[in-house]
Amino acid sequence: MSVRLQAAGKFLCIEAFIERMERMTEHTIKTTSSDEMINITSLVRQDVKKAGITSGTAVVFVPHTTAGVTINENADPDVVYDLLSIFRRVYPESGSYRHMEGNSHAHAKASVVGSSCTVIIENGQLQLGTWQDIYFCEFDGPRTRKVYVKTIGG
Amino acid sequence: MSVRLQAAGKFLCIEAFIERMERMTEHTIKTTSSDEMINITSLVRQDVKKAGITSGTAVVFVPHTTAGVTINENADPDVVYDLLSIFRRVYPESGSYRHMEGNSHAHAKASVVGSSCTVIIENGQLQLGTWQDIYFCEFDGPRTRKVYVKTIGG
Amino acid sequence: MSVRLQAAGKFLCIEAFIERMERMTEHTIKTTSSDEMINITSLVRQDVKKAGITSGTAVVFVPHTTAGVTINENADPDVVYDLLSIFRRVYPESGSYRHMEGNSHAHAKASVVGSSCTVIIENGQLQLGTWQDIYFCEFDGPRTRKVYVKTIGG
Repeated sequence: MSVRLQAAGKFLCIEAFIERMERMTEHTIKTTSSDEMINITSLVRQDVKKAGITSGTAVVFVPHTTAGVTINENADPDVVYDLLSIFRRVYPESGSYRHMEGNSHAHAKASVVGSSCTVIIENGQLQLGTWQDIYFCEFDGPRTRKVYVKTIGG
Repeated sequence: MSVRLQAAGKFLCIEAFIERMERMTEHTIKTTSSDEMINITSLVRQDVKKAGITSGTAVVFVPHTTAGVTINENADPDVVYDLLSIFRRVYPESGSYRHMEGNSHAHAKASVVGSSCTVIIENGQLQLGTWQDIYFCEFDGPRTRKVYVKTIGG
Repeated sequence: MSVRLQAAGKFLCIEAFIERMERMTEHTIKTTSSDEMINITSLVRQDVKKAGITSGTAVVFVPHTTAGVTINENADPDVVYDLLSIFRRVYPESGSYRHMEGNSHAHAKASVVGSSCTVIIENGQLQLGTWQDIYFCEFDGPRTRKVYVKTIGG
């Protein structure tokens, strides 16, 4: 937060401290399949730790239109397998689409899972459930992708 | 917001006040059906009031992978009935799933409606539309569930 | 952020400045079709600029239960055409619905794309990807609709 105080002296230490509390980091992710879910929770945890935030939120944002981010089970990899399979059935690659690139199904999946997720931070920790992790969702790979993480707090 | 000022005296009142502005509460919800939508708006409204926030946001987060949260119509209960019915058709319980627990359909619904929603707070009030309320979505019940509400503001 | 300091003098300039950092604006959108996606990115960009925020988030919230908001491709209008077509196939207008208004399909679409999206602000700019724009999604028009934009930062 950039509280630009016009006053001098002790006030300036407030500015500097609040500034440190909010930051955005950018991560690069290389996907290897046409559709794939990659666990990025450890990346987000590192960002929260580096930002030194004890209470606030972390916004994970995917700046792509054929990829997204979702929170789902971290224990059994068959859940991810089933999710991708279910999305393939509901949003098939082939269809009477106009978009010539042939990836309209991927655009639909991106809007359905969403391009961001928000996780609460308390006591310096992401407040995820026991079985929850954060997944980058590739729907039109393989590609080199970006993920932004913005930690907001104080 | 924990602005830990190193300065003493009057500065400390700022710290205390800002601290009060952000808080997370945890609610327990007992569901009674395999799938069900439970109106939790009054819980969120109470949290906003207790936090004393006049302007900010409320993040409602569900720490489960077979449940979610969504905002939809509060007037006619038939809308909730139809929504659950529509999701059952699009994401049927039976399918060629790998996950042995038999609840892959519920994991898919959770990712589709999402694990969180963000509502704006202005003048101390949630800025929901006339027909909008916030619903906890059970997709694999009955279970005892948690909902986190984080109010952020000032 | 309304940090109401009880102390006098120089402290009050902090209050005023932080207050300016957070604001909500309300926009009116007239839709012309039963389903339609309207690019509202320029509205959100204006709000961010007016708020004078350099680092933070913008929350775009739709206070309706048969409309939503999503982020998707801005280059080829065929993507929007295909998305609306795909949603019509997955959530058809006709079905064995209970809700007498005949728009249960629109309520389902609203919950699937979601009633809000959060975009990161850095260096005073929305951190959208090259091909991303923010779309108001009408699913039961034509109607006069509202969109709220809340900029949070500092």
